[in-house]
Amino acid sequence: MNKLKTIAICGSSGHISDQVEAICLELGKKLAENGYNLVCGGRDGVMEAVCHGFSLAPNSQGTCLGILPGMHKEDANPYCQLVIPTGLGYARNSLVVLSGDAVVVVQGASGTLTEVAYAWQFGKPVASLKSTGGVAARVADTRIDDRRKDKIAGFAEVEELLGWIKIKLGE
Amino acid sequence: MNKLKTIAICGSSGHISDQVEAICLELGKKLAENGYNLVCGGRDGVMEAVCHGFSLAPNSQGTCLGILPGMHKEDANPYCQLVIPTGLGYARNSLVVLSGDAVVVVQGASGTLTEVAYAWQFGKPVASLKSTGGVAARVADTRIDDRRKDKIAGFAEVEELLGWIKIKLGE
Amino acid sequence: MNKLKTIAICGSSGHISDQVEAICLELGKKLAENGYNLVCGGRDGVMEAVCHGFSLAPNSQGTCLGILPGMHKEDANPYCQLVIPTGLGYARNSLVVLSGDAVVVVQGASGTLTEVAYAWQFGKPVASLKSTGGVAARVADTRIDDRRKDKIAGFAEVEELLGWIKIKLGE
Amino acid sequence: MNKLKTIAICGSSGHISDQVEAICLELGKKLAENGYNLVCGGRDGVMEAVCHGFSLAPNSQGTCLGILPGMHKEDANPYCQLVIPTGLGYARNSLVVLSGDAVVVVQGASGTLTEVAYAWQFGKPVASLKSTGGVAARVADTRIDDRRKDKIAGFAEVEELLGWIKIKLGE
Repeated sequence: MNKLKTIAICGSSGHISDQVEAICLELGKKLAENGYNLVCGGRDGVMEAVCHGFSLAPNSQGTCLGILPGMHKEDANPYCQLVIPTGLGYARNSLVVLSGDAVVVVQGASGTLTEVAYAWQFGKPVASLKSTGGVAARVADTRIDDRRKDKIAGFAEVEELLGWIKIKLGE
Repeated sequence: MNKLKTIAICGSSGHISDQVEAICLELGKKLAENGYNLVCGGRDGVMEAVCHGFSLAPNSQGTCLGILPGMHKEDANPYCQLVIPTGLGYARNSLVVLSGDAVVVVQGASGTLTEVAYAWQFGKPVASLKSTGGVAARVADTRIDDRRKDKIAGFAEVEELLGWIKIKLGE
Repeated sequence: MNKLKTIAICGSSGHISDQVEAICLELGKKLAENGYNLVCGGRDGVMEAVCHGFSLAPNSQGTCLGILPGMHKEDANPYCQLVIPTGLGYARNSLVVLSGDAVVVVQGASGTLTEVAYAWQFGKPVASLKSTGGVAARVADTRIDDRRKDKIAGFAEVEELLGWIKIKLGE
Repeated sequence: MNKLKTIAICGSSGHISDQVEAICLELGKKLAENGYNLVCGGRDGVMEAVCHGFSLAPNSQGTCLGILPGMHKEDANPYCQLVIPTGLGYARNSLVVLSGDAVVVVQGASGTLTEVAYAWQFGKPVASLKSTGGVAARVADTRIDDRRKDKIAGFAEVEELLGWIKIKLGE
């Protein structure tokens, strides 16, 4: 039975650059190949590109889950395998984070920052791909507050990030 | 890729009778064998028994998803494969319903009635296993209000219910 | 300081008959005159008419509070004094109920039934104005499940309902 | 009828210093004296101190509203006049922000940062009392992302902040 660990991806909706898209594709594919589930907000932009990457490893045991702000499954990007249409608007951000065993930040703006702050508050391991810019670059290697002693782990490369995930999730 | 239809199960937490448990096991197993995903509130009672049944068809393509009221994955019953810990309390009931392409009621009390009413409001096909008693028996073959022309489809047997699901989901 | 008890009103949005409107106006006015706060879903129909009635007792110490499904205060009916735009969609129904010290049902359809069922589950005193029809008539003098020994108190007249509220809230 | 503007206060729960408490008391009192409603998360720490200050202007037309994470009104600080027990956990943070016409940050840690980021995303005017430290100091005079051209307005003094609120809310 699928009892795989789940990685939450927090990042921008909307247009992304070719460079960020390539990173997202690599990230999604490696998460799938390494036997993780993927959870994200189910929309376009970073979310869609990571889900797309996930689908490129078709023999994966993992599942790609989208937790939507709206009420309609049809709003999910086409790579989501399971869709939770919450109808909660942006209050759904905390659910994406709670569903991850670890949280990875890719680019992102204010909505992503709510997720980073929730992840920190909920005690989740948080890493960021700082080469993608935006919130990911801003929060890399920093603390959100003094209640935790660790930092948001900043990485330039997906491969390094994967190593960190494996260590954090005890494998 | 998993693009299976998803059936939401709404029913009692807490102790259930041997008779209701047997119905739940059969229901879960048949949903899995017929290639559906299962979504429920992830707790004990009816939810656990249906998830247990689902796990008894290990070659299923479907996934068993639990959407918890609390913040901790550990609170899910052991048969859930993917867990969404919402932290929303009973406001999560609407999410269980929204995640289903069809909704099935098994026994149940007031919490289940919120889910039945949401399912009706959201326009979801709703059926009930009326032999399980509780809310399922009460709402079987009735309308919640006049905005829909159909009724909650009441069934005595799991096999009949499966036939209804296949018709409703266009297969 | 305002430490008044709060009455949650659950009822239909959309068009209501003149007869139901008259009952709503009387209900809102008497709640205000008797020093209660009013909370509802902040929309039109029953909600607006009760809020309108509340505004007709301008010397009231009470406050009229609308808890909206959407994100915009402007969507509230014009009689709401304080507006909480939740952005939660229909998951906001549980908040309306939780905000009341007692819950009153007026007409209503499936959305109202979610609120009645939540009120019962949360242990709130629940009454219904059964002369208004809809869910209010259906649930009057019934139990939602066996976990409570009381019934939903059905009343034909607003005056009787007020007497019940005063008793239930210990005044 | 109360159609006052509402100020959302976002800040730390738990212990606060005497200096921060004095600022909170002044802030709450001046908001009340200037005819604003106050909304916050209804808990202790910064929230309680600002609500306490609000209560020190007893002739205010404004109302002090607490939007709690839990299900029980009794968990609110004693200065809240109206209490919304959401049962949503930290997903309630977005509701606090949505309820404000402007948002003020006082000290704060990761939970407060979720509120700042939501406020930015929702297009609310945001100011911070940077002398209170924590998140308030960190975000003062910065942008959360490039989608807005303004900055989070940082103030050292409550009096200056009040002037900004009056300008922003068009008075």
